[in-house]
Amino acid sequence: MNVSQQIETRAAASERNMADAIRFLAMDAVQKANSGHPGMPMGMADAVTVLFNRFIKIDPSLPDWPDRDRFVLSAGHGSMLLYAIHHLISFADMPMTELAAFRQLGSKTAGHPEYGHALGIETTTGPLGQGIATAVGMAIAEQMMAARFTSSLCNHFTYVVAGDGCLQEGISHEAIDLAGHLKLRKLIVLWDDNRISIDGSTDLSTSMNQLARFRAAGWDAQSVDGHDPQAVAKAIERARRTRKPSLIACRTRIGKGAASMEGSHKTHGAALGDKEIAATREKLAWPHPPFFVPAEIKSAWQSVAVRGRVAREAWEIRLDASRSKKRYEQTIARDLGGGVADLLAKFRAAHRKRGSKVATRQASQMTLEVINGATALTVGGSADLTGSNLTMTSQTQAIAPGNFKGRYLHYGIREHGMAAAMNGIALHGGFIPYGGTFLVFSDYARGGIRLSALMGLPVIYVLTHDSIGLGEDGPTHQPVEHLAMLRATPNLNVFRPADIVETAECWEIALGEKKRPSVLALSRQALPMLRQTDGDENLSARGAYVLQEARGPRDVTLLATGSEVEIAVAAAERLQAEDIEAAVVSMPCWEKFEAQDAAYQGQVLGDAPRIAVEAAGRLGWDRWMGPHSAFVGMLGFGASAPAGDLYRHFGITADHIVAEALRLVRDDFREAPRIGARTDSRIGKDVIASSREI
Amino acid sequence: MNVSQQIETRAAASERNMADAIRFLAMDAVQKANSGHPGMPMGMADAVTVLFNRFIKIDPSLPDWPDRDRFVLSAGHGSMLLYAIHHLISFADMPMTELAAFRQLGSKTAGHPEYGHALGIETTTGPLGQGIATAVGMAIAEQMMAARFTSSLCNHFTYVVAGDGCLQEGISHEAIDLAGHLKLRKLIVLWDDNRISIDGSTDLSTSMNQLARFRAAGWDAQSVDGHDPQAVAKAIERARRTRKPSLIACRTRIGKGAASMEGSHKTHGAALGDKEIAATREKLAWPHPPFFVPAEIKSAWQSVAVRGRVAREAWEIRLDASRSKKRYEQTIARDLGGGVADLLAKFRAAHRKRGSKVATRQASQMTLEVINGATALTVGGSADLTGSNLTMTSQTQAIAPGNFKGRYLHYGIREHGMAAAMNGIALHGGFIPYGGTFLVFSDYARGGIRLSALMGLPVIYVLTHDSIGLGEDGPTHQPVEHLAMLRATPNLNVFRPADIVETAECWEIALGEKKRPSVLALSRQALPMLRQTDGDENLSARGAYVLQEARGPRDVTLLATGSEVEIAVAAAERLQAEDIEAAVVSMPCWEKFEAQDAAYQGQVLGDAPRIAVEAAGRLGWDRWMGPHSAFVGMLGFGASAPAGDLYRHFGITADHIVAEALRLVRDDFREAPRIGARTDSRIGKDVIASSREI
Repeated sequence: MNVSQQIETRAAASERNMADAIRFLAMDAVQKANSGHPGMPMGMADAVTVLFNRFIKIDPSLPDWPDRDRFVLSAGHGSMLLYAIHHLISFADMPMTELAAFRQLGSKTAGHPEYGHALGIETTTGPLGQGIATAVGMAIAEQMMAARFTSSLCNHFTYVVAGDGCLQEGISHEAIDLAGHLKLRKLIVLWDDNRISIDGSTDLSTSMNQLARFRAAGWDAQSVDGHDPQAVAKAIERARRTRKPSLIACRTRIGKGAASMEGSHKTHGAALGDKEIAATREKLAWPHPPFFVPAEIKSAWQSVAVRGRVAREAWEIRLDASRSKKRYEQTIARDLGGGVADLLAKFRAAHRKRGSKVATRQASQMTLEVINGATALTVGGSADLTGSNLTMTSQTQAIAPGNFKGRYLHYGIREHGMAAAMNGIALHGGFIPYGGTFLVFSDYARGGIRLSALMGLPVIYVLTHDSIGLGEDGPTHQPVEHLAMLRATPNLNVFRPADIVETAECWEIALGEKKRPSVLALSRQALPMLRQTDGDENLSARGAYVLQEARGPRDVTLLATGSEVEIAVAAAERLQAEDIEAAVVSMPCWEKFEAQDAAYQGQVLGDAPRIAVEAAGRLGWDRWMGPHSAFVGMLGFGASAPAGDLYRHFGITADHIVAEALRLVRDDFREAPRIGARTDSRIGKDVIASSREI
Repeated sequence: MNVSQQIETRAAASERNMADAIRFLAMDAVQKANSGHPGMPMGMADAVTVLFNRFIKIDPSLPDWPDRDRFVLSAGHGSMLLYAIHHLISFADMPMTELAAFRQLGSKTAGHPEYGHALGIETTTGPLGQGIATAVGMAIAEQMMAARFTSSLCNHFTYVVAGDGCLQEGISHEAIDLAGHLKLRKLIVLWDDNRISIDGSTDLSTSMNQLARFRAAGWDAQSVDGHDPQAVAKAIERARRTRKPSLIACRTRIGKGAASMEGSHKTHGAALGDKEIAATREKLAWPHPPFFVPAEIKSAWQSVAVRGRVAREAWEIRLDASRSKKRYEQTIARDLGGGVADLLAKFRAAHRKRGSKVATRQASQMTLEVINGATALTVGGSADLTGSNLTMTSQTQAIAPGNFKGRYLHYGIREHGMAAAMNGIALHGGFIPYGGTFLVFSDYARGGIRLSALMGLPVIYVLTHDSIGLGEDGPTHQPVEHLAMLRATPNLNVFRPADIVETAECWEIALGEKKRPSVLALSRQALPMLRQTDGDENLSARGAYVLQEARGPRDVTLLATGSEVEIAVAAAERLQAEDIEAAVVSMPCWEKFEAQDAAYQGQVLGDAPRIAVEAAGRLGWDRWMGPHSAFVGMLGFGASAPAGDLYRHFGITADHIVAEALRLVRDDFREAPRIGARTDSRIGKDVIASSREI
């Protein structure tokens, strides 16, 4: 053996022990919780030890140092792999007591890794495929930062550990296609190629040649023995050099090391049992008790932290010496400056005065023109509907392979991949991503949107063509249940502005959110400017407000959002001819209105009978409607026809509102026990929307 | 030229005219509607003409003949391609007047093809990628039927026309991986390889080598000039012979034939304009007015119908001669026979008597054991969660490549692909598909679930682990908004049974639905048998019912579903000690309850204050709660911990219900204007669930 071989052998011996530490921490923590997934941490312990021991650049004493490498455990069920490493390299919030409290209430060691729940967790994973797709966004953001600040300030890798599930999920296709296209050379995926999924062998459900698949997408792809540290290290070295994103298939045995269960799908999602664990201690010559790691092994792991700290300190010196320091720090802080708000206030005032009548998707583009001119933080995009979503502005040059100076992403026909990539861009830091598709295709992006909300990320979804108002494309393209789906999602703003003024207001609120994603549901069709009051107050910030008060005491209150506010205003006018005083309340954001105090809510909603008007399903509206009320909206799916015909066909008209108001106000209304309105349960294409309380 | 070459040349000349007929019908219909997508029908006219003229086996006079070839226009925006062909081969409901009414209210020519809306439309398409994924289900069903009835009764191809969008969407990955694995040799996909998407060249967003990608998944893949009929025909011939599913990349020019716009993305989604169309008439030497097709071209197209009729008549003779005829017809009719209902009634009675305490997912498996024993129509499956969803029974042998006798599909980690495949199985006919995943991963399947509902298909989703009751896996795996999302979807039954009796009842209802999909939301945790009444009536069929009436006049009514009914029952008992009479209403299916008459609804809900209890978000509940009410449930996302700890942490407990009841009943309740309850808008992990009306 020559010296270099000797060093390698010693490193491998030490790495074997380092990996075994992960194995026993995973086994013991899952056993104690009697819940969790030991198989993956055990199977990938060798490869991930090599990755951390020899390559990864993170500093546990400053977990959010911007130029750290990103490590994404896409196979999030293997969370004990991450927690074990975080303990071993001394993250402040991961003492051994936390590992012993795995999956218990209040512990840092949640069932799946959660961003923000413990230090150093780069993204929330568990829903399969999200990690790899989010990592694509991180790698895009890295390249964008490097293009803006040179590689002396931004130069890090994004490493992913993915399982078979991640690669079977459709979102992985969207992610790898986009990554290959953009040649994200600093994205490196280690695939835990153990040929086992929950149901048993992957032979039960797939015959995919993953290496060929990734190569078809423009990736570099290698396959190595995942239990051979030298082979893994060599593969990572090559991956770091190649000009393409890299897949390294690590051939592993699930539950590697387990005395009798190694290789079995039974190690995937359940504790191994005391007997098996005891036998594994024998087999691996690991005499230590549970939740104990010998000092020399702990010390070996410390070198990871030391290497990271040294790198971080060197980076800080470079940053201090950089002329871009201030701009860099503002970027990382996502500091919008005061300019945007002022410009938007002027924009609103001008269009209020001018009475601009435009589709809210167009109002959104006009607003974005102001925003993108005032800040470089925003990064636009669309899932191949740029001309429909109107997400491009004069400032947003497209990003392309080799050119990351731009700030617009052609995400392709990949709504799910777009959502996850936006999450990754937001998580990386330095940018505020927004991206467009049709509201109805929020269906395809659901998994990613949910994670935006769960992680509390400042991601903005521009969802246009927000109702039957899109017209001829028909029911497959007409959202009916989507506002309810999004409103039901915790920690998500769902904005549906009624005109250009509200659109600008909602954009301003969305931009100001630090820990909450936003949806802007926007019309295809033109809508008149409706704001009547003067003054600069952002009324949408209260979620709902009286757009037009009744002249005297209210006989009825009309609640509406978006394109239906115009219809409510028309109905109110017609009701005056009938001597009925109607107030019109615009409700651009239920979530913000819910956060108002009771006095304000009461003042807006009033105590007159209410009619809710929205070109969508009723679910959720009863919260605001009160006992004497009616709903004018959709009872089922839409249909294909010009928008005007559809509004008439489904009865979402001023006439219908007037008729409902007359019934509510004039009928000899008996206060019967309030029960659910009966609606027609047919698909409803031919049913006039109407609902009567009885 | 030899004779065969002469014939080919003549066929090609004729096919050129046949294709031009499609082109002008598409151009003119889109122009008249001033809405639609001419580019794709024009680009694919040549290839699809060859497919129909030389290969496809359909009989327009009997559009649902079971052994017809299936044609799926996955790129559904090219609907005029389909409508033009349906007109040209004389489908009864597609006269020229319908083409002239393209995209108008009440016409057969909806914006995108809709199953059930016009004859011969095999599936609803438009949301990209759904067609190809649904076709996989059709091809699976074809093989299954052939395995049961020999190829003399079932022997047809499934042809798909897919665009770039279909192949970029993630669902396509799930579909082609599954199809390649199962070696669905009679699935043939023609890809409209025009290198154009809405934003412009596909170079903007993808560098995928699609042929290599499909080959990696086990497909045969070819590339041909899509405007060369002989090449297309040769490719289809090879595809029909190969033992694998086939991709044929048809290199085309979008808007082929257009005078100046051929090849431009501007032909994709808008009318070409009168001038361009006139110039195109010149260029293609097509002197005919809009909406006119010369007799000789119409006659050439008629040969497609003739070939189909001959094939269908030959098949009918084979069916009449078959000893399996009766069984075949029962299968196609999805005739369950009376046996299942009787067996399920006995099953319910036995477990009512026995008081069986099991998780509803286990109750579902026990019910399925009865169902699958009594009928061969059901086809089970799971997205790699078989042991968790408990979707397998003793009768369900797995389907595998080359073995389609089984009736269980290991769908892999592919929720979206599973949903679409189930749609395809249901559309093909002969089977009732059910498939499992966790409720939270209905997110991933949303696009497919929506189409189940829009098409009105008898597909059953077995969605287990339906709340924080799943425990330690944490918020990524705990559904909170999913019941609302599903309940908001029109034409979908959302069942959440409370015990083994309700589970069997809900299964029985779901099986009986002919035109409506169902979701069964099932618990991970064990739940006691709660049914107190005797008798065989399926009480779940009414959607909600009084499980336990108050002894005297009601002081409060507790509304609950699923695992929370047990908690409501416990609360009612405890309230008695406080001299408060509570009724407990179980609401396993809101949709069915909505369809009841007002008298029944009133009787169930009563006029006492109400408390709704569900381990999910509030959205939608206000419809049933009434003005004096409270909600006990989730305000935000869940957390990682054992289930019992989580229920206590989030306050979904009998104690909390009792406290709310005391407040509602004893407080000096002023009937204030009913307004929305204020809730904490934080992510809510640490917030005790509670909501107070003010």
